[in-house]
Amino acid sequence: MRCGAGIDARMVDELAINIDPIQAGGRLTADAMKAVIAYGDGYSVCDNCRKPNRLDYITKPPIAEFHKDLASWLNMDSARVVPGARRGFQAVAHTYVKKGDPVLLTSLSHYTEFLAIEEAGGTACEIPAGDRHIVTADAAAATIEEVKKQHGRAPALAFIDHVDYQYGNVHDVQVIAQVAHQYDIPVLYNGAYTVGIMPVDGKNLGVDFVVGSGHKSMAAPAPSGVLAATAERAKEVFRTTAITGDKTGRQFGIKEPEMMGCTLMGVTLVGMMASFPHVQERVKHFDRELENAGIVAGALRSITGTTILSEFPRKHTLTRVDTTASFDTVAQTHKKRGFFLSTALNEKGVTGIIPGATRVWKYNTYGMTNAQAQYVVQVFVDIAQENGLKTG
Amino acid sequence: MRCGAGIDARMVDELAINIDPIQAGGRLTADAMKAVIAYGDGYSVCDNCRKPNRLDYITKPPIAEFHKDLASWLNMDSARVVPGARRGFQAVAHTYVKKGDPVLLTSLSHYTEFLAIEEAGGTACEIPAGDRHIVTADAAAATIEEVKKQHGRAPALAFIDHVDYQYGNVHDVQVIAQVAHQYDIPVLYNGAYTVGIMPVDGKNLGVDFVVGSGHKSMAAPAPSGVLAATAERAKEVFRTTAITGDKTGRQFGIKEPEMMGCTLMGVTLVGMMASFPHVQERVKHFDRELENAGIVAGALRSITGTTILSEFPRKHTLTRVDTTASFDTVAQTHKKRGFFLSTALNEKGVTGIIPGATRVWKYNTYGMTNAQAQYVVQVFVDIAQENGLKTG
Repeated sequence: MRCGAGIDARMVDELAINIDPIQAGGRLTADAMKAVIAYGDGYSVCDNCRKPNRLDYITKPPIAEFHKDLASWLNMDSARVVPGARRGFQAVAHTYVKKGDPVLLTSLSHYTEFLAIEEAGGTACEIPAGDRHIVTADAAAATIEEVKKQHGRAPALAFIDHVDYQYGNVHDVQVIAQVAHQYDIPVLYNGAYTVGIMPVDGKNLGVDFVVGSGHKSMAAPAPSGVLAATAERAKEVFRTTAITGDKTGRQFGIKEPEMMGCTLMGVTLVGMMASFPHVQERVKHFDRELENAGIVAGALRSITGTTILSEFPRKHTLTRVDTTASFDTVAQTHKKRGFFLSTALNEKGVTGIIPGATRVWKYNTYGMTNAQAQYVVQVFVDIAQENGLKTG
Repeated sequence: MRCGAGIDARMVDELAINIDPIQAGGRLTADAMKAVIAYGDGYSVCDNCRKPNRLDYITKPPIAEFHKDLASWLNMDSARVVPGARRGFQAVAHTYVKKGDPVLLTSLSHYTEFLAIEEAGGTACEIPAGDRHIVTADAAAATIEEVKKQHGRAPALAFIDHVDYQYGNVHDVQVIAQVAHQYDIPVLYNGAYTVGIMPVDGKNLGVDFVVGSGHKSMAAPAPSGVLAATAERAKEVFRTTAITGDKTGRQFGIKEPEMMGCTLMGVTLVGMMASFPHVQERVKHFDRELENAGIVAGALRSITGTTILSEFPRKHTLTRVDTTASFDTVAQTHKKRGFFLSTALNEKGVTGIIPGATRVWKYNTYGMTNAQAQYVVQVFVDIAQENGLKTG
């Protein structure tokens, strides 16, 4: 089935249990699917845009209300929607980082945080994660002191991932933020794997900014995301335009330069809004998600030679596993080589791991029912046993 | 009908002829509508993302091919998709404009070009459009000389709108670009109202960058757009990342900092791709669009007191009209005041003008059939006559 010349209709989550590490939290809800159908056209949310002509002031559809609800849900003072978490990083980096400024992030930080620093002209200073792949407040403090010695000043900004993309480990943002604030460093909480997945309380965490990803974790179409700020920081990052036309004297009202004016003018925003009540509800049940994460990780560990590289017990559904001493030994002699694993999984209705990967790989159990998790467990154990690996 | 809590399903283009100035070129094609249904989920285009892990290298769906086709269609060397034309402006401004640099644009430039300059720390220098609201190469040359005197250097960059958003007038980008190049100023062609609407040939225009808007003019969901560049400029604006992790030594491959890595990871891109063959075809028939623009503008002019403020005959479908001496005289005594016009239009199945506007307003006839244009003509004339205005 095609949906355009050369474009096959995508049927992934419809046909299989998808354990792709980045896709699980971005599957649309049924309401979001209806919203993309109704609001697919380009500037679809602009029908009732009136003065002062800014996206977050539109009341029909209820975009203004959504912005307030989003800020309040994250326990922050202001929120804006952005085309992906990365555009939130960019706006904040651009506001605080001057050429040559040191910027704090971690050895597990996502590449988009590095790009935001690079684009603003800053220097990336990593807090090392330590042997257990956990970023601690002590390591943050030591790194800030190092940076001060080396650069003669404290970092201009800190990016801290609550849950990192490599291990899905949970890092102590709250205490790290306290440390950073002792040096007056604004703290950006990267919630790409948490906002929309588990409860996030910005004020309680004591951070200056909360960034979330719509397409990664809020059941929204891409590119979408949220940047929330405290009242104090909102004045800085959401400052309004000051430029004027030198000949015409034109001014541009309350448009915000870091947002480049309006951000998500159609399907992405309404998709996010339609999913929002469901996302607000689902974060309350993260314990069920952890239960599923636990039984799948447990099953993988039961295959002799397999190591869960993420912290265990799991505190998040994104998990990194090392099967070099289990599935990869099969790949050495299997006629399909490393592809045997993804092929076998696909044949049994499980998709989302990189074809050919049998050494270190990631998966995500988010959004499964318990029955699906039990089924995935059985699939992994069956594939192991069918290929002569020991289990139990 | 609702598509989520508090969100009414949008039925605008389904129920009426929509003459909204910014929405006409962004209505989805049927293929794009299928694509948004099939690719609504967050990271939907990432199923087959393999090394080197960048959006424009994905071959299934055929994203790599689309990027090549897009560049070739615009007669440029490289193209990237971006979350709206404004993000193309931002990337280019950020590459060329340093703090305090003068930047050329026009007295009819869109606010997002001003924001891009502001965000990069530049100063906006407007080329005045002249009495007929047309930007000429002479005015460009004079402004560059002025800037040189005032700032001690030529502008760092020029933004030239081929068709401006205020009047829908066509400006002579080709000659303006020649003038700018005499001063070694890179030229960004703003095709927000042309790319996807009429043929655009970047090399023939002699510009360094072509920017287009998916949601404004390419029948794509928002936010989407294209930034195309010559081979020489592509090396600058699409340079790859050079940042490294200071502790881990991590590098980030061929990700592009001005793009913030990948840009449109799902529905927006596939919507754009699905519409692309139709968009390629429709630009060949811009003459039919101009015919419709002409008959609607002609009918409005036939209402005594009405002036078409845009150049006439029309060279674009976006048109600015002054009805202060016609419809606004009705509004003075009508019980619905200024709302009588939009109300009457809506009752007759024509939508898209700002409710209450009876003085200076804009409309766009793009995408109408000839029969629809004839119908719109009749509607305007009928409303005029029903309210005692003279026509003919």
